[in-house]
Amino acid sequence: MAIMEISVVPLGLGQTSVGDYIAAVVQYLRQQQLPHYLTDMGTIVEGSTEQLLQVAQVLHEIPFKRGVKRVLTHLTIDDRRDKEVHLDDKIRAVKARLT
Amino acid sequence: MAIMEISVVPLGLGQTSVGDYIAAVVQYLRQQQLPHYLTDMGTIVEGSTEQLLQVAQVLHEIPFKRGVKRVLTHLTIDDRRDKEVHLDDKIRAVKARLT
Amino acid sequence: MAIMEISVVPLGLGQTSVGDYIAAVVQYLRQQQLPHYLTDMGTIVEGSTEQLLQVAQVLHEIPFKRGVKRVLTHLTIDDRRDKEVHLDDKIRAVKARLT
Amino acid sequence: MAIMEISVVPLGLGQTSVGDYIAAVVQYLRQQQLPHYLTDMGTIVEGSTEQLLQVAQVLHEIPFKRGVKRVLTHLTIDDRRDKEVHLDDKIRAVKARLT
Repeated sequence: MAIMEISVVPLGLGQTSVGDYIAAVVQYLRQQQLPHYLTDMGTIVEGSTEQLLQVAQVLHEIPFKRGVKRVLTHLTIDDRRDKEVHLDDKIRAVKARLT
Repeated sequence: MAIMEISVVPLGLGQTSVGDYIAAVVQYLRQQQLPHYLTDMGTIVEGSTEQLLQVAQVLHEIPFKRGVKRVLTHLTIDDRRDKEVHLDDKIRAVKARLT
Repeated sequence: MAIMEISVVPLGLGQTSVGDYIAAVVQYLRQQQLPHYLTDMGTIVEGSTEQLLQVAQVLHEIPFKRGVKRVLTHLTIDDRRDKEVHLDDKIRAVKARLT
Repeated sequence: MAIMEISVVPLGLGQTSVGDYIAAVVQYLRQQQLPHYLTDMGTIVEGSTEQLLQVAQVLHEIPFKRGVKRVLTHLTIDDRRDKEVHLDDKIRAVKARLT
């Protein structure tokens, strides 16, 4: 399993808030039943690389379907094949070093 | 106040785990008493842009101080001046749209 | 057409150089005959979003096929549907403003 | 010397084009006489980490000075201390492997 952080930024909106688009992103991930959570800077999802890139394609299209004309999508995939990694594992591993 | 996500990646380690370096990052942020939290893909910090870039400089140096020879640092700053934004505000705003 | 910047970073190598992996990335893009060029920080490719994400999947797998155990892939897609955009168009548009 | 890629994205513009802001970025870098070039996805600059983060702060402020209310700045610093690296070195090293 890999972990992806994704941020989909609609440009040309005439408003600074993009929360509506992010809400649509979260709704899609809930429907897909993929483990995920929201941060202040993006959405973090767990899945196979293939799944994650399919998700990226769908999320990238959300603002266009609502009339936006330009979208910037940033994503990072962290894919580790020497051991199973799930959401929160990395956070737990760091916190264990801190106590 | 702005919000920064930062990820400091040491290269050339000969091991896949980078948790020790991330633990040192969190320790520095605790000492500085800056609001922050860890995600699976980086660390999110709140502060003025000036503070955040100073923090970035310190965090970027951590692996070098431990003998690493190459470091990749990625950061994103989201800076909004039409209203005060703090950690978790964006998450709350999205969640309010979802219920 | 959209434009993607992609950077595929192999971790756990025990060496700081990653040029061999980037050379394999460029070889694949040449075979696919997709417009692309190399920068100091990544590879920039033009195509449909669907093509670009398929390319991302292939490029992300290259280090794993050579025995690497952990890969970080960063990508940004800039997709504009109010006009056709090709490689170098944005650079030309900025330079026109500078002269 | 380190190499930075930076992209400064103004939000809330009501137009999809951001070329004017990028032109102001390039003008500043020219004045500073820092080695740099434009790509389709950002600006690449060479300098010490300290210089690069100071540059980042100035570039991040450019859209605010022109009335923009929200700015997203992404940057990546690649800092290698086992050898001197300058702009184009990495591109040349990859191309040497390809011929």
